[in-house]
Amino acid sequence: MPMKDTIFTPEDLDGLLAAIKSADRKIMEEAGRRLDNKTKPLGSLGMLEELACRMCGIRRTLTPGVAKKVILTFAGDHGVTEEGVSYIHREVTKQMVYNFLNGGAGVNVLARHVGAEVQVIDVGVDGDFEVQGLIRAKVRNGTENLARGPAMTEEEALSAIGVGVRTSGRAIDDGADILGTGDMGIGNTTPSAALFSVLIGTDPESVTGRGTGLDDRGLAHKIEVIKKGLQVNKTHVSQGPLQALAAVGGLEIAAICGVVLECARREVPVVLDGFISGAGALVAIKMKKEVMDYCFFSHRSAERGHQVFLEEIGIRPILDLDMRLGEGTGAALAMSIIEAGVKILLEMATFEEAGVTQGDEVQS
Amino acid sequence: MPMKDTIFTPEDLDGLLAAIKSADRKIMEEAGRRLDNKTKPLGSLGMLEELACRMCGIRRTLTPGVAKKVILTFAGDHGVTEEGVSYIHREVTKQMVYNFLNGGAGVNVLARHVGAEVQVIDVGVDGDFEVQGLIRAKVRNGTENLARGPAMTEEEALSAIGVGVRTSGRAIDDGADILGTGDMGIGNTTPSAALFSVLIGTDPESVTGRGTGLDDRGLAHKIEVIKKGLQVNKTHVSQGPLQALAAVGGLEIAAICGVVLECARREVPVVLDGFISGAGALVAIKMKKEVMDYCFFSHRSAERGHQVFLEEIGIRPILDLDMRLGEGTGAALAMSIIEAGVKILLEMATFEEAGVTQGDEVQS
Repeated sequence: MPMKDTIFTPEDLDGLLAAIKSADRKIMEEAGRRLDNKTKPLGSLGMLEELACRMCGIRRTLTPGVAKKVILTFAGDHGVTEEGVSYIHREVTKQMVYNFLNGGAGVNVLARHVGAEVQVIDVGVDGDFEVQGLIRAKVRNGTENLARGPAMTEEEALSAIGVGVRTSGRAIDDGADILGTGDMGIGNTTPSAALFSVLIGTDPESVTGRGTGLDDRGLAHKIEVIKKGLQVNKTHVSQGPLQALAAVGGLEIAAICGVVLECARREVPVVLDGFISGAGALVAIKMKKEVMDYCFFSHRSAERGHQVFLEEIGIRPILDLDMRLGEGTGAALAMSIIEAGVKILLEMATFEEAGVTQGDEVQS
Repeated sequence: MPMKDTIFTPEDLDGLLAAIKSADRKIMEEAGRRLDNKTKPLGSLGMLEELACRMCGIRRTLTPGVAKKVILTFAGDHGVTEEGVSYIHREVTKQMVYNFLNGGAGVNVLARHVGAEVQVIDVGVDGDFEVQGLIRAKVRNGTENLARGPAMTEEEALSAIGVGVRTSGRAIDDGADILGTGDMGIGNTTPSAALFSVLIGTDPESVTGRGTGLDDRGLAHKIEVIKKGLQVNKTHVSQGPLQALAAVGGLEIAAICGVVLECARREVPVVLDGFISGAGALVAIKMKKEVMDYCFFSHRSAERGHQVFLEEIGIRPILDLDMRLGEGTGAALAMSIIEAGVKILLEMATFEEAGVTQGDEVQS
């Protein structure tokens, strides 16, 4: 399935950003009142109730759908791997795409478990695929080495955003009620940490973790590489989120940014996975803060730095299971919790329906 | 469905406790090695991996079943409600049993969502039911007022434990792979807090919360009632966990204790709900610490004091969603996460199967 058109212009981005509006607070309040009438103490289902209300505010309805769940897993390679920032061979990005398409990866298992579909998009893997079922939207064969210059041009970053916009738009056209994001790209915790550092305005040490399993020496080296990259690209990264994304980001990170923007425009909820997805989301948030209304942050990644990001945006995620796999694994599990919240709103009996005496009627 | 036999003797309890053994550590380690061979960085699915390993250790197999999930929701009334420890009318316990049987309560919605069955057991509701589908195992019509004397006799507490043992045993005989506990009983955060205070050895203030929604004055009064109950029953509560359970506990709490014991004996996992289930579990743990191996603690309840209990037993629960409804709602959601962990072990491809290069082969 090749994407027909990968051109995405600055004007396309401006138009997209201008079309994004806040979620509907009035419908959220109305949903809250409905929940207060269910057979339970007020607020006693905690975050499930908040999730349900926000789903209503996003979809502008008191009966939001949750049946069709789609996870978009974007794959891309990273030139910075030549600096030795990961112990995993770069070839694994491509190998894992085959694993996704064969249904054997973590995200496949968890998506099946929660009844979600996984779509796999090649937005920038270094190498060609001979396989069915892959969405082909390659912008380029991996990024350049961000430690030596810009990872991408702005045009390439825009094109990758466009891939996210178009794949999510198509999933929504096909009836998706809720989207999840996922990533695959050996080395991609490095550009993500670089983006967190720039966009949060914090030192690289506080947002750089061990990725797939660096030792202390490997981690120290990775931090040095990121510092070098931020220095080399300092003119670019100071110009704005798009420029930072191009200079020190990644193709799959840009695509995830595009998914967030398009979901916000189309008023569809998007469930962000962990560290990498957070970097893509943060770029989108810096472009237009209203996108936050449409984002559910699935889990607290065990990757150091994710917590710094969550604090920056003031979010307590849905799950906290020490996961750090990526792919969309956290998004899959969290989708099921969001669905549970919506079902509470839609399926639970009210006090009247169940003939149950309400607490405040007998309150002393 | 009446339970045929509600007699449970001190000798029955001794025999049950003697039959409980630790989970199989060797199989847990073998499961861990299998997980290390899956296409993911080592340990990167965090708690999901731990849950999967423990399921293997409990069931003594590397392919534990998770398909058949049963939540046992025990209902009982509490004499202490005459002290005004809850704003909710005592009649609501009975009304909610009908709500459970009609499928309209929170636990029904969440159990359907995760594919679990809910069984409702009357172990001590004050009143009779004319309805199908209820498991009838009433030990007595609610407890006595614990602020004025023992809530139950030891014989009654043993009988209620026996109800938990028999209902869980029957569910296991019918093929349940995993059980969850739930409770319904207006006023039951009061006996639960009293039990936490006695069995943890801490002041009632630190383990007493607002239940269904007490204000500051109501909370202060509830703490005073608990202090009075502990004073009145001080001889009993100092004699051991069974005596404490009888003196200041509840019938549904005793039944949950019985479920934990029987699951441990039968080597079947049990997922504890929140505050009330925690009190039942703590009684079981104090009787035989090995039962901990079989317990999954589903979530951190928003009810004050649950965190104190979790710290006492050294557990970080699976979920933390500010829930405080009881019924088995937290157990339902957590069962699905445990199932996800098992599916990771059973369904994910290995490096070899997927043709993916392992990290340590290229580690520098």
